[in-house]
Amino acid sequence: MAPTRLHVQVNPASAIAEAFSEPRLRAAAAGQPVELSFGQTAAALEAGLATAEVLLLAGGAPLHDLARRAPKLRWISYTSAGVEWLLKAGLPEAVVLTNASGTHIPKAAEFTLLSVLMLNNQIPFFATAQRSHRWAPNPGGTVTGKTALILGMGALGGAAATALARQGMRVLGNSQSGRPHPDVVEMSRGDGFRAQLPQADFLVIALPLTPATNGLIGAAELDLLPRHAGVVNIGRGEILDAAALAARLAEGRLAGAVLDALPQEPLPPEHPLWDTPNLVITPHCGLYDPADYAPRCLEAFFANLARFRAGQPLHQVVDRARGY
Amino acid sequence: MAPTRLHVQVNPASAIAEAFSEPRLRAAAAGQPVELSFGQTAAALEAGLATAEVLLLAGGAPLHDLARRAPKLRWISYTSAGVEWLLKAGLPEAVVLTNASGTHIPKAAEFTLLSVLMLNNQIPFFATAQRSHRWAPNPGGTVTGKTALILGMGALGGAAATALARQGMRVLGNSQSGRPHPDVVEMSRGDGFRAQLPQADFLVIALPLTPATNGLIGAAELDLLPRHAGVVNIGRGEILDAAALAARLAEGRLAGAVLDALPQEPLPPEHPLWDTPNLVITPHCGLYDPADYAPRCLEAFFANLARFRAGQPLHQVVDRARGY
Repeated sequence: MAPTRLHVQVNPASAIAEAFSEPRLRAAAAGQPVELSFGQTAAALEAGLATAEVLLLAGGAPLHDLARRAPKLRWISYTSAGVEWLLKAGLPEAVVLTNASGTHIPKAAEFTLLSVLMLNNQIPFFATAQRSHRWAPNPGGTVTGKTALILGMGALGGAAATALARQGMRVLGNSQSGRPHPDVVEMSRGDGFRAQLPQADFLVIALPLTPATNGLIGAAELDLLPRHAGVVNIGRGEILDAAALAARLAEGRLAGAVLDALPQEPLPPEHPLWDTPNLVITPHCGLYDPADYAPRCLEAFFANLARFRAGQPLHQVVDRARGY
Repeated sequence: MAPTRLHVQVNPASAIAEAFSEPRLRAAAAGQPVELSFGQTAAALEAGLATAEVLLLAGGAPLHDLARRAPKLRWISYTSAGVEWLLKAGLPEAVVLTNASGTHIPKAAEFTLLSVLMLNNQIPFFATAQRSHRWAPNPGGTVTGKTALILGMGALGGAAATALARQGMRVLGNSQSGRPHPDVVEMSRGDGFRAQLPQADFLVIALPLTPATNGLIGAAELDLLPRHAGVVNIGRGEILDAAALAARLAEGRLAGAVLDALPQEPLPPEHPLWDTPNLVITPHCGLYDPADYAPRCLEAFFANLARFRAGQPLHQVVDRARGY
């Protein structure tokens, strides 16, 4: 059986570009049944697409009009979880799209636990006080027995639930399916999360960005939370109305927030969120483990490649109707 | 048997004053074999000491010359862990001193875990970048397999070791005795911690303040840590040379720090530590759980009172020679 024609395209501006460098890719592909091309430029993408059966993609790239540009393409493997921009590009029906759902699990579990502990221990409040040289003790209890509501119970949300339950927290969950999770005491489905918001000491947004989740958490939803609640966003910035959140943080209607997903990325220097009180901003790298991520991705990719060559169904296939 | 003559003195300026309010104290003492007086002023202290057999003390108070002022006093129960200032007051030999060692355990475990996770996830770096509106991704791996060195393996250090080991960390410890701990893979004693410093991804200071620990961690010790290391102080500010730490944080010789114990408390607004890069300051309340702390203290106090009245040895007795 002939080697599979694989083009690897890496966006050099992406945070993960270094982890997917050409030497690393060539080393990982050695001994695999592939005829490899590697590119970082628009010209290299065009040349690669002309003959590729499989595209392995790290970071964004212009992927419009693929039926014409990539006549042999049958599979795009994207090395991140969020594929909303790829779906907007209008991929041909015959091209299967897989993503890196689940690759972030260990780091996502740690980062979510960290974010909830930061909120419980008023770190956003202390960071704000520190900016104005203000000594302002604000003690509180442990997280044990407190309630976290996780929106989105995919790979990230599930890992977060397990990490929080291990600290003795009461974990509520919400997903489209409402399927039970062993570490979640109460699952809701669809709009059912609104009835759970008043119970939440901490709200964790771990949703993919889809037409249904775009703008899902706005002023009305935030106002269902208790005043002492904290908010974590490890999903996508567009899901949460950050201006509504900022207004509530400034007036003390909510206690704190940790945002790893922002409404604009990079967040421009003049954006008012930077100075919002009781808010900690992490620049969309909380879930990313540079030493671990690319090897895990490539291991999953080559396992999927064996299935692709054997005509078997692939893992991590994106459901285009759901959007994740 | 006659009730024990108990004076409770609360410093109204103390962070724990509200938790030890007169109504709460009187409620807790109801049914106990005590003749209670309660005071918050110097005059009330003087009147109380004149007849008290037992002094329950929350926050600081002038306790010089007790042999004259408190002729019947046999026991001082102090509702915090750090007794260095009490030992300086020159207590009469016949007066037993107990403290609240161990009362902080659940919160101390959570706060130490939080601090190490913050350092591992570059939160001090991101908080610094946020002050200057700078989007600066700085991803890293999980704490699993990384090494924490805990100085001081008393109640706090032991709880910290357990919390960190539960996250899959390799925990090293140091104490005067070098006594083994089930969650510590390598204990050192006395000066032996210096040989452990080069292995530490994270240094956790959980020591009491004594003549031996005063100034223990200075420039020379900090320079034994790897450049990527982070430092946590949940002990006392005087143990760590904060100016030496700040210089190393500013020049990138160390990666970050979380200080709950500061060289001056409250830290004055003009102090340079407030603006030190890659440093998060929490105002000495990280270990304090206001809902839980006073009830736990009072439960321990009245259990000790029963032993006192029965002529049995007390728990939580401070060894004045050791200083804790």
